[in-house]
Amino acid sequence: MDITWTPIQKQRLKELNASPVCQEKRFESANKRDVAFQDLERQLVAKGRQHLTEFQNNSKRPLLSKLEQRLIEALNLRGFAQVMTPTIISKGSLAKMSVDDKHPLFSQVFWLDSKRCLRPMLAPNLYTLWKDLLRLWQPPIRLFEIGTCYRKESQGGLHLNEFTMLNITELGLPLNERRQRLEEMAALVMSVAGIDEYQLEVTSSVVYGDTLDVIKGIELGSSAMGPHVLDKKWGITVPWVGIGFGLERLLMVKEEAQNVQSMGRSLSYLDGVRLNI
Amino acid sequence: MDITWTPIQKQRLKELNASPVCQEKRFESANKRDVAFQDLERQLVAKGRQHLTEFQNNSKRPLLSKLEQRLIEALNLRGFAQVMTPTIISKGSLAKMSVDDKHPLFSQVFWLDSKRCLRPMLAPNLYTLWKDLLRLWQPPIRLFEIGTCYRKESQGGLHLNEFTMLNITELGLPLNERRQRLEEMAALVMSVAGIDEYQLEVTSSVVYGDTLDVIKGIELGSSAMGPHVLDKKWGITVPWVGIGFGLERLLMVKEEAQNVQSMGRSLSYLDGVRLNI
Repeated sequence: MDITWTPIQKQRLKELNASPVCQEKRFESANKRDVAFQDLERQLVAKGRQHLTEFQNNSKRPLLSKLEQRLIEALNLRGFAQVMTPTIISKGSLAKMSVDDKHPLFSQVFWLDSKRCLRPMLAPNLYTLWKDLLRLWQPPIRLFEIGTCYRKESQGGLHLNEFTMLNITELGLPLNERRQRLEEMAALVMSVAGIDEYQLEVTSSVVYGDTLDVIKGIELGSSAMGPHVLDKKWGITVPWVGIGFGLERLLMVKEEAQNVQSMGRSLSYLDGVRLNI
Repeated sequence: MDITWTPIQKQRLKELNASPVCQEKRFESANKRDVAFQDLERQLVAKGRQHLTEFQNNSKRPLLSKLEQRLIEALNLRGFAQVMTPTIISKGSLAKMSVDDKHPLFSQVFWLDSKRCLRPMLAPNLYTLWKDLLRLWQPPIRLFEIGTCYRKESQGGLHLNEFTMLNITELGLPLNERRQRLEEMAALVMSVAGIDEYQLEVTSSVVYGDTLDVIKGIELGSSAMGPHVLDKKWGITVPWVGIGFGLERLLMVKEEAQNVQSMGRSLSYLDGVRLNI
């Protein structure tokens, strides 16, 4: 019983979203394995086709689009206003985030020319809006954005070159409420995404205060709070909290998908189903 | 009465979304003009602040996001399934659209490296999905995408470097229903966008059949149909129609905004209001 799937079979099973148990199966002989593969592939293809037919006739809206809509509604209800900012940002705004050529993220940035790049994160744009809105709005200022971010990734099962980031922020809250607010934000997002039994990992830092990561097997979200060492560059002088989530990862965990590509913008997958079936 | 606004005044009035009548006003003297400007600017700033306060406390969702949601719901109801495809596309897929270095669009493409660019249109991705879905789905195949497209533009009042495109397509319909279907698609989008009294301009071509442009003062949408000379490269052999709209232009016309920037992803405007007020 020590014959495993061939690398090609294993790759195909992953594409077809076979369960981890299926992927780890072992066989007495190569022949029995190959018969089992044909059988399993046929079942998974039939399941995929059924899902796609259901998608064409009933659901008609990808999981990612539905999750965005549910998040917008839930966050609006809790008083958070949605903003939509450019995906093309300036080199200067990246530098103000301290993402310069010594920063690990720098090599992952897609450049359009010497002055402009695709945003690897939403934070610089939200900092920019905060500055204006502190003048125009009464605190607390509750904002969120859901938008595409870009990072050059090795494209493993957990990373995407373009992914959908949600950032929720609150600006102008009492210092001693920051930790609690981050926990509430995490709970709201997990509830909308339909994920329970997640873990919160707290890291305390003299400089940055407590930060909170949201984990369920993989990292789903991470947070920051201010006063923060970057605030001065952006003209921000009041306390804040912010938490960010990758929507494709939330869907991957909820749907028990075998890779994050199947949940993202894709030409190979539609609503989680591989199209070469 | 031949004193006009100074260029700086005129620019500011445009940013503040002053009506065309206001922008064309003439004065007896520079002094009277400058007094009128101060008065008008104060009124427009107050109006903008009021809109932003209403946005913070009530609406909480930008016009662009609301329009996207209404379009998705209306198109789903009419049987169109939503797809979400990558904004980073290959040089090869652009070439298959005949966008090579002789094509007018070519110089407007943002390149990431020698092989990849930001999509200037949704069509190549939709062609790719069509090929797979023709095998997997029963016709008619009704698809739409709403997503960001990118073009290097001179950034006048009608163009954006990044804008939100809606493409609605139907694949596998009778040849003689194509024209009618395009008119129905245009009518649906105009109805959802709240725009009436638009014009349809028909161009007939022996090669491409009828194409339809949707106009209201400016071009809002344009269409194509197949059999089309490009179909063969993509392996498409059945009739189709497709129509595309820029969502920011729909909002501009509906809201009577003075520039398309105020309706798009921005750091200078929030929900149509200039932030430096």
